[in-house]
Amino acid sequence: MGLRSEFTVGIVDTTFARVDMARFAIEEVRSLRPSARIMRLTVPGIKNTPYGAKKLIDAGCEGVLVLGWVGPTTVDKISYAVASMGLVMLQLQTGIPIVDVTVHEDEAQHHRELVSVAEDRTRKHTKNLILLLSGDLSEHAGMGLRQGRRDVGPL
Amino acid sequence: MGLRSEFTVGIVDTTFARVDMARFAIEEVRSLRPSARIMRLTVPGIKNTPYGAKKLIDAGCEGVLVLGWVGPTTVDKISYAVASMGLVMLQLQTGIPIVDVTVHEDEAQHHRELVSVAEDRTRKHTKNLILLLSGDLSEHAGMGLRQGRRDVGPL
Amino acid sequence: MGLRSEFTVGIVDTTFARVDMARFAIEEVRSLRPSARIMRLTVPGIKNTPYGAKKLIDAGCEGVLVLGWVGPTTVDKISYAVASMGLVMLQLQTGIPIVDVTVHEDEAQHHRELVSVAEDRTRKHTKNLILLLSGDLSEHAGMGLRQGRRDVGPL
Amino acid sequence: MGLRSEFTVGIVDTTFARVDMARFAIEEVRSLRPSARIMRLTVPGIKNTPYGAKKLIDAGCEGVLVLGWVGPTTVDKISYAVASMGLVMLQLQTGIPIVDVTVHEDEAQHHRELVSVAEDRTRKHTKNLILLLSGDLSEHAGMGLRQGRRDVGPL
Amino acid sequence: MGLRSEFTVGIVDTTFARVDMARFAIEEVRSLRPSARIMRLTVPGIKNTPYGAKKLIDAGCEGVLVLGWVGPTTVDKISYAVASMGLVMLQLQTGIPIVDVTVHEDEAQHHRELVSVAEDRTRKHTKNLILLLSGDLSEHAGMGLRQGRRDVGPL
Repeated sequence: MGLRSEFTVGIVDTTFARVDMARFAIEEVRSLRPSARIMRLTVPGIKNTPYGAKKLIDAGCEGVLVLGWVGPTTVDKISYAVASMGLVMLQLQTGIPIVDVTVHEDEAQHHRELVSVAEDRTRKHTKNLILLLSGDLSEHAGMGLRQGRRDVGPL
Repeated sequence: MGLRSEFTVGIVDTTFARVDMARFAIEEVRSLRPSARIMRLTVPGIKNTPYGAKKLIDAGCEGVLVLGWVGPTTVDKISYAVASMGLVMLQLQTGIPIVDVTVHEDEAQHHRELVSVAEDRTRKHTKNLILLLSGDLSEHAGMGLRQGRRDVGPL
Repeated sequence: MGLRSEFTVGIVDTTFARVDMARFAIEEVRSLRPSARIMRLTVPGIKNTPYGAKKLIDAGCEGVLVLGWVGPTTVDKISYAVASMGLVMLQLQTGIPIVDVTVHEDEAQHHRELVSVAEDRTRKHTKNLILLLSGDLSEHAGMGLRQGRRDVGPL
Repeated sequence: MGLRSEFTVGIVDTTFARVDMARFAIEEVRSLRPSARIMRLTVPGIKNTPYGAKKLIDAGCEGVLVLGWVGPTTVDKISYAVASMGLVMLQLQTGIPIVDVTVHEDEAQHHRELVSVAEDRTRKHTKNLILLLSGDLSEHAGMGLRQGRRDVGPL
Repeated sequence: MGLRSEFTVGIVDTTFARVDMARFAIEEVRSLRPSARIMRLTVPGIKNTPYGAKKLIDAGCEGVLVLGWVGPTTVDKISYAVASMGLVMLQLQTGIPIVDVTVHEDEAQHHRELVSVAEDRTRKHTKNLILLLSGDLSEHAGMGLRQGRRDVGPL
């Protein structure tokens, strides 16, 4: 599961999201892997992200970040389930890793907190995807890592 | 992800819906892309829309709008989940984008409001599909766009 | 999406159902398309209906009616979701339309009403399948048609 | 959908179950079809049953009984949904009928009642599978048959 | 369903987990099958485990343990459902057994208890996978075995 030094990362984001999370993701990729190529595709909402990820994989991406945003209602949670299932199915079809960064509008009480969650989760999961593409997250196994908030640590 | 100037858009709608949403979709396509061809297939209800979308894709559509209508009960929401999952699976099979415009009968208190939601959501998502087929929604990424109601904007 | 004058309709029903809905479906097919052939397969319950529909499609049916019956518990609703998902997947695999007529035991308070729902829904959806096979439901699009009860009409 | 006189039935059961339901299933098969061969595979829990059923189908079984046991929590019900979906998908892949006998630990108040449900449901569904393999359940269509408890009959 | 004496077991675990469950799994494999090879892949969270399991199967593993950890919220339970469904689909694709060891953060009140659940469940399910690969769990069928806590026994 090694990776050649120049590789291509895909980023799928949405117009539904209320934070431009792709900006943080691009910064992280540029910082961690300056030689990496980035392809980005913006779709309307979370249910369109499996389509977006497929397009990027078909276009040559070796790993994909999906930056989703989910509303607070039951219907929104159903859409989250459907999108997540699609992303899993796509990984089983292609063998390409997809890490989804999903922010739920009801997981914070204030806008500022939600922005902070979105940034932290995007940055950390971008690192996770890079590490996954490099084949090695095992030194952090069972460490209670969290994205969006502080790590809770091992028990 | 470019698109030739003449392309074919599919529209799937239902007899279950209480608003003829296809009318708005057709108007938008005609206005945005006068040279586009439109194929339409009407099915009974939301669970039949994956079949309808498949038929239109098999007939040559390069993008599909699905105009669904969902009742207020738990069974209706299950049907929404099933139909949505089918549409995602179809996109993974074919690589053709499908944007679904779903109106939930319990998301407004008055009929007039529901009609307004249906029209606004249909028009905006028709534009989204056209933009998606042209490959470019990234200038609106993270802008908190909403369909059916006013945009909520970025945080 | 035309259809030759002699075609084959499949009917899947269950021993779990408390009304012999297939009788109504057969009457409707005989009345609307006297030359149509009918194949019927009875399975134990709703979760077996995707298997039944597949068998009928493999045997040459060009469209399938699924006559399901669902109990009132959460487990019953899960079974409804699973069966529905299977029927959607089968349609995506085969391109054959499946219209499911599902009666939920908790959607009426009295037995007589439930029988009436079952008959009305079966007859109307049988017509829907015939129309769908003939390619044309668009004149009823957005008309708020309902099966099992009276149409609610457009808004 | 006929069946040769010697056929092979698969039985998948679990170590999670609290009743040895396979015993009843084997008795029924032996009684109804003395010439049938039986293959059995025991897996840990319900989520492993699609794997088990696949193994038995790959090994030549023409029909499979799945004897599942489900706990009372929400997580258990999710596992039931997942396993059921897997069994439906496997039937769509293979065309082999799978009848699942699922006992939910919260569907009876006393242990004795639960054992009785498990035995009755297993015996009746074993018959159902045999009938299904022989192609004929239609004489019982719409009769309100139940497994685990007394039939409720037609309305 | 026999197994050659040297075989390869895959272990997928996560950085989200708060206990290094892989340690227990490795100990058990080493103890039960000293000649077995072990491949391990650590992914961020439970929704990435189907990808991880696929990678290990593609790399030659004959059986896979998935060590998941699930938070207490509704969204966490949806993620559990999605991951589980992916693992079932992967088994249907490949015929390779996957046993998932899932610890839910809300299934114990104290940290110590949760650690104990995680260890017990991991050890027992590791044995289950080894037995499953050897083809034989039927002597424990219907015995009410539990992982994470004491067996509840047959009724």
